[in-house]
Amino acid sequence: MYRRTRHRVNQLFQVGAGGRIGQYIDSFILALIVANVATVILETVEPLYAAYQAEFYLFELASVVIFSIEYFGRLWAATEHSEYRHPVWGRLRYATSPFMIIDLLAILPFFLGFFFDLRFLRMLRLLRFLRLFKLARYSRSMRLFVTVITDKKEDFLIASSVGGILLLFSSSLMYFVEHEAQPEMFSSIPAAMWWGVVTLTTVGYGDVHPVTPLGKLLGAVVAVIGIGLFALPASILASGFVEESQHERKYACPHCGEHVSEHELHELE
Amino acid sequence: MYRRTRHRVNQLFQVGAGGRIGQYIDSFILALIVANVATVILETVEPLYAAYQAEFYLFELASVVIFSIEYFGRLWAATEHSEYRHPVWGRLRYATSPFMIIDLLAILPFFLGFFFDLRFLRMLRLLRFLRLFKLARYSRSMRLFVTVITDKKEDFLIASSVGGILLLFSSSLMYFVEHEAQPEMFSSIPAAMWWGVVTLTTVGYGDVHPVTPLGKLLGAVVAVIGIGLFALPASILASGFVEESQHERKYACPHCGEHVSEHELHELE
Amino acid sequence: MYRRTRHRVNQLFQVGAGGRIGQYIDSFILALIVANVATVILETVEPLYAAYQAEFYLFELASVVIFSIEYFGRLWAATEHSEYRHPVWGRLRYATSPFMIIDLLAILPFFLGFFFDLRFLRMLRLLRFLRLFKLARYSRSMRLFVTVITDKKEDFLIASSVGGILLLFSSSLMYFVEHEAQPEMFSSIPAAMWWGVVTLTTVGYGDVHPVTPLGKLLGAVVAVIGIGLFALPASILASGFVEESQHERKYACPHCGEHVSEHELHELE
Amino acid sequence: MYRRTRHRVNQLFQVGAGGRIGQYIDSFILALIVANVATVILETVEPLYAAYQAEFYLFELASVVIFSIEYFGRLWAATEHSEYRHPVWGRLRYATSPFMIIDLLAILPFFLGFFFDLRFLRMLRLLRFLRLFKLARYSRSMRLFVTVITDKKEDFLIASSVGGILLLFSSSLMYFVEHEAQPEMFSSIPAAMWWGVVTLTTVGYGDVHPVTPLGKLLGAVVAVIGIGLFALPASILASGFVEESQHERKYACPHCGEHVSEHELHELE
Repeated sequence: MYRRTRHRVNQLFQVGAGGRIGQYIDSFILALIVANVATVILETVEPLYAAYQAEFYLFELASVVIFSIEYFGRLWAATEHSEYRHPVWGRLRYATSPFMIIDLLAILPFFLGFFFDLRFLRMLRLLRFLRLFKLARYSRSMRLFVTVITDKKEDFLIASSVGGILLLFSSSLMYFVEHEAQPEMFSSIPAAMWWGVVTLTTVGYGDVHPVTPLGKLLGAVVAVIGIGLFALPASILASGFVEESQHERKYACPHCGEHVSEHELHELE
Repeated sequence: MYRRTRHRVNQLFQVGAGGRIGQYIDSFILALIVANVATVILETVEPLYAAYQAEFYLFELASVVIFSIEYFGRLWAATEHSEYRHPVWGRLRYATSPFMIIDLLAILPFFLGFFFDLRFLRMLRLLRFLRLFKLARYSRSMRLFVTVITDKKEDFLIASSVGGILLLFSSSLMYFVEHEAQPEMFSSIPAAMWWGVVTLTTVGYGDVHPVTPLGKLLGAVVAVIGIGLFALPASILASGFVEESQHERKYACPHCGEHVSEHELHELE
Repeated sequence: MYRRTRHRVNQLFQVGAGGRIGQYIDSFILALIVANVATVILETVEPLYAAYQAEFYLFELASVVIFSIEYFGRLWAATEHSEYRHPVWGRLRYATSPFMIIDLLAILPFFLGFFFDLRFLRMLRLLRFLRLFKLARYSRSMRLFVTVITDKKEDFLIASSVGGILLLFSSSLMYFVEHEAQPEMFSSIPAAMWWGVVTLTTVGYGDVHPVTPLGKLLGAVVAVIGIGLFALPASILASGFVEESQHERKYACPHCGEHVSEHELHELE
Repeated sequence: MYRRTRHRVNQLFQVGAGGRIGQYIDSFILALIVANVATVILETVEPLYAAYQAEFYLFELASVVIFSIEYFGRLWAATEHSEYRHPVWGRLRYATSPFMIIDLLAILPFFLGFFFDLRFLRMLRLLRFLRLFKLARYSRSMRLFVTVITDKKEDFLIASSVGGILLLFSSSLMYFVEHEAQPEMFSSIPAAMWWGVVTLTTVGYGDVHPVTPLGKLLGAVVAVIGIGLFALPASILASGFVEESQHERKYACPHCGEHVSEHELHELE
């Protein structure tokens, strides 16, 4: 009975397993995570928090209870997996796997709230935001991203280092040119780098911008050259993404039925 | 005689049918839609509206009369189509097709104006803007867009969800960092998300931006990483669009030599 | 003698003809055009104009004299071409060709200055800017642009019309949402379209932006969706440009010397 | 002994040579360059400089000593290379090679500080920034960039010239339209070009923008058309980069079946 329960619990909490009930549990946990993230966001709206403080607390309590059941359920049933068979060391090793640490971080802040005083409360709210990472267990799409980035790692590195040097150079030059005219805005090179990032990414808030003719000339040159270089990692990401999602296709000829791979097809004129 | 008239009316109102006169009617309705949209826009310019109030009303009256004739003409002649043959249920089913609902929405606001008082007038003006959707009947190009988006649906979803999570995360972090320094600007996470969208899309109005050193550092990191991720759906759309518009190709099978056109090829799993 | 001179003049003024002297003339005229454009730009800098008014006038005089000689020389020698053989009608027809009209517009403003009073002077300065178009005669690169745009005409049209409708819609909605809160900024739909263009192109000056929560929500949605759609024509242009400049290449095999076209090459695994 | 030392010194200072000790020296110099750049940046932060003035000076002294040893070591051992064999002329020619000039510029400012008075000190600090260029000796990635740019030189030229003419034209037109309404902002065409660059690169600081209806119309048209044209060089760079980094391919000749690698293929004219 004990073993069968443990086997069933393990199945239910595994993503994509446990039959129909397992699916319901998956969906429920997923919805609860999304609702929790929404709650953290909405709690920061002062009038809303003031009006529904009790409801927010109750929802938080319920969430933590459910997440705790999930966490300890998973931990208890972990010995079902052959790699975590040992009742103590197996569970300990399982508890230190990335996903379980995320799950622990999702409930810990609540319990820590009892021991620490109120000043830490705002910090702890931030930690509750880590519940978003619980989504990682359910997402397959992230893997495509990781694949693209590891595939194009070297390209990213080159493009990033060129972008970094460009940022350093243009910010330093701008500091030397504008420091005297705007000693508050361009107080130091790190301060000038704020201008650099805002310009090179074409965000252009307008809080910092050159005012001297030489500074404007330099700013214009940096903007014209920079947008191309700074947009390069984005282009590499995009082209890698499009590439990855259209891997070499294989077709069947409608006339003879033989398999044809993409590069064997010759376009007719 | 009745049937012949109905047959002719049906032909005349069908886009791309009805011979030369049908073409004139198509062009006239098209021009009238464009003129109506222009009128809605120009009416909002106060001095123009004050000077030509009567003319605007007359044009509106004439447009509604013509659009009503078109609407009821189409509805009456709908029984010509075999699928809408039944004089009552056929026409009712036809009236609930998307294009006919759009056409009804284009004339309804005028008639509603008689029943409701003046406070709704501005709202009704907005509804008159729906006449723009009447263009959908005449546009073939929209279909290309729909094709691209359905083809790349999964890519869009991945890119959008990554963008959404990025927006949530960066906005929440920025709220925690800047809330104390700018309690009015970063009053809550939803308020901080306005900063997030304005920054990640590189619009950068400059109404909200970090002012603390830590906030600027975070803003810089978000801008550098974010532009690449947030521009991804745009890149997917563009590459899909370019792909799609490279018209239907013809190939020769390398096995049997027979000619195969692109749509005859089925991808193997 | 008269005919030989006319033949020589015709050769000298034809771009890429007339031997070494013809080349010198080409280069000289090209340099003069660039210098003229630079002069028009520099003349607008008040202190510079005040200090060198006489020099600017002399340079303008010299330029007009040279451009006039070029213009009338071309016109006189035009009868050398078989299509413009007739001494009167041939020259008249030649004078109305696009390049000759540009050349005339480049010198006319100066002579018009004698007849009209000083109020038109600033307008005439603007016309002098048309001399830049004289460059068209010397540029080959523009043709690549024209090719790309005509090739992708339909794509551009679709992308532009979608962009236009998006602009119309988002601006109109924003007008209805923000009109009451900012009656000066969003005074009419055309005024709101200034916001629309500034946002959708991601320029984001910050002079106009939504302030109400609903307006910010709408603005955020428009920005996120819009950048992708508004950037589409740019992407089409870019992909067309890259495509055009790498037309199907032909190679020679280094082993057997036979010609191989690009699509005949199969990559090895 | 003298020759063996010289041989060893030459090996140690050559990038990627000199065994394990040579590698340590490479890494140490690299780290020292990065630390020097960081120091130049941090020195501009006033409170930091005030607190650690002595430490900054000591680090600068140590760096110059090490860079000087490196410089003179390289120069002395240069005669090991057959091309720089002559003890005087060989070393002189070596000293005028690009990398050695950069290395000299990295140490010269310090020694010049003794001869010139303090007013030049800030200028000299700027020169110390040239140490960043010492990185060029260690970077392989820059070569990829240079390759892309030389490969696509013609495309860049076309795109840049079109962009330049667009900037000139739109700025001049905007000057004529807005000069009267904003004589301070649009004081001259060069001043208007600041608006042009800020708009066409979509940076949009918001310090200069049209305010008249005609100016806004012109600005909108320029923004819509301009972003596509101004982004073209960036797109060319990106597509060239992606192309270039798709490593060397191997093909089979369709005529003789021999394997051909990409660089063996010569394009036919």
